[in-house]
Amino acid sequence: MKLKVYVDRMSQPSRAILIFCKVNGIDFEEINIDLTKLQHHSLEFKNVNPMKQVPAIVDGRFKLFESHAILKYIACAFPGVADHWYPSDLFKRAKIESVLDWHHTNLRRGAVGYVFNGTLAPLVGRKLIPKVAAEGEILLSASLETIESFWLTDGGRFLLGSTQPSIADISLVCELMQLEVVDDEDRIRILKPFTKVKKWMEDTKIATRPHFDEIHEALFKVKGILQKRRISAATLKINSGSKL
Amino acid sequence: MKLKVYVDRMSQPSRAILIFCKVNGIDFEEINIDLTKLQHHSLEFKNVNPMKQVPAIVDGRFKLFESHAILKYIACAFPGVADHWYPSDLFKRAKIESVLDWHHTNLRRGAVGYVFNGTLAPLVGRKLIPKVAAEGEILLSASLETIESFWLTDGGRFLLGSTQPSIADISLVCELMQLEVVDDEDRIRILKPFTKVKKWMEDTKIATRPHFDEIHEALFKVKGILQKRRISAATLKINSGSKL
Repeated sequence: MKLKVYVDRMSQPSRAILIFCKVNGIDFEEINIDLTKLQHHSLEFKNVNPMKQVPAIVDGRFKLFESHAILKYIACAFPGVADHWYPSDLFKRAKIESVLDWHHTNLRRGAVGYVFNGTLAPLVGRKLIPKVAAEGEILLSASLETIESFWLTDGGRFLLGSTQPSIADISLVCELMQLEVVDDEDRIRILKPFTKVKKWMEDTKIATRPHFDEIHEALFKVKGILQKRRISAATLKINSGSKL
Repeated sequence: MKLKVYVDRMSQPSRAILIFCKVNGIDFEEINIDLTKLQHHSLEFKNVNPMKQVPAIVDGRFKLFESHAILKYIACAFPGVADHWYPSDLFKRAKIESVLDWHHTNLRRGAVGYVFNGTLAPLVGRKLIPKVAAEGEILLSASLETIESFWLTDGGRFLLGSTQPSIADISLVCELMQLEVVDDEDRIRILKPFTKVKKWMEDTKIATRPHFDEIHEALFKVKGILQKRRISAATLKINSGSKL
């Protein structure tokens, strides 16, 4: 029985799992749970993940949610996953655990707070909350500074100075890719001070191509829609201004 | 060279690591980093953990921070740690990872938001923020409901239906013990609906005695001080009221 992966490609941890599975040649079935249609609240999906969140997996009789737990499970349960993704070496693995734990309460919290409350909320019927978005941006920038000055300082192209990517690289870069949906000016402004971060994002994309680009197509589609809306809104503003 | 464990016993993840080490007979040196004296901002401690947070460990040349990563490292690096703490079985371990990841963005976020912003902030020179505390309480109660109705439903006395505790039990119960410092009425009100949670907390205490009680003495000392302050403040209020 194939591994079932329940995802919405607009969700950054969903994309991380899809990319990881594809890069490692894992035979899986992708099941789309459309968050904008509130499919994560369906009774059927509640049987998969009672927390009503994507990503989640079903592997035979085994059910699991939380993206980091899923990445580790897949890295260990399927043959052929190269060791660098989740090293069996105790010290290397511990450091990756440390990055992943740090991610929860820093980069992820900041990025989600900023992107969701500043841009994405209306897509799932919620209101924008500029104050929460602003708080998110502060934590996001502090987290980017930590990646730039600490997690990327040990020589290699990837986190912790590794010469090859780990599940932490995929998880964190997919999080940062979510910035594509905000206004381009804002994204460029936020990332501008962080040269190493931008290089690392590019290196992670290259290391996981062509899957990285393919899995991110959905995000770029939404980016395009939001950009058009912004242009329409700006044009409307200019036109209504000229009529005054 | 002994394992060095940098902690403040007022920090709940610090206590989790101390209890875990003591229960498992690990030979370690406890180094107190007094958060109220801002010792976590010292240059010396920055060399141990650049994130300026406890807990952190130094094991020979190896440095590590983030409490879950530390618990897993110790469980794997030291001989004699019973398998139930962090099972080598792939499926059991994956479920524990899932609880630990869930903890970061649910119970921990809720409990810290509530306890720190509603009670502890002044001890480290910060202001109380009642609005953030109230938001924290909502997430804390929702997380308690999830523990009660989901994580504790599989039969055993511990999380995931286990008959013996894991690192997740220690981590989550230490988090909930932080509620001891809030007003007793509030703690009792918040925990009241959750019979299984209260039983599980008691079972975890029993399973890790006498270390659990010993390590929590510092917390109960602060609880006593805060209780006295509350009584003094209430008395002052009554007295000044009677003078009106």
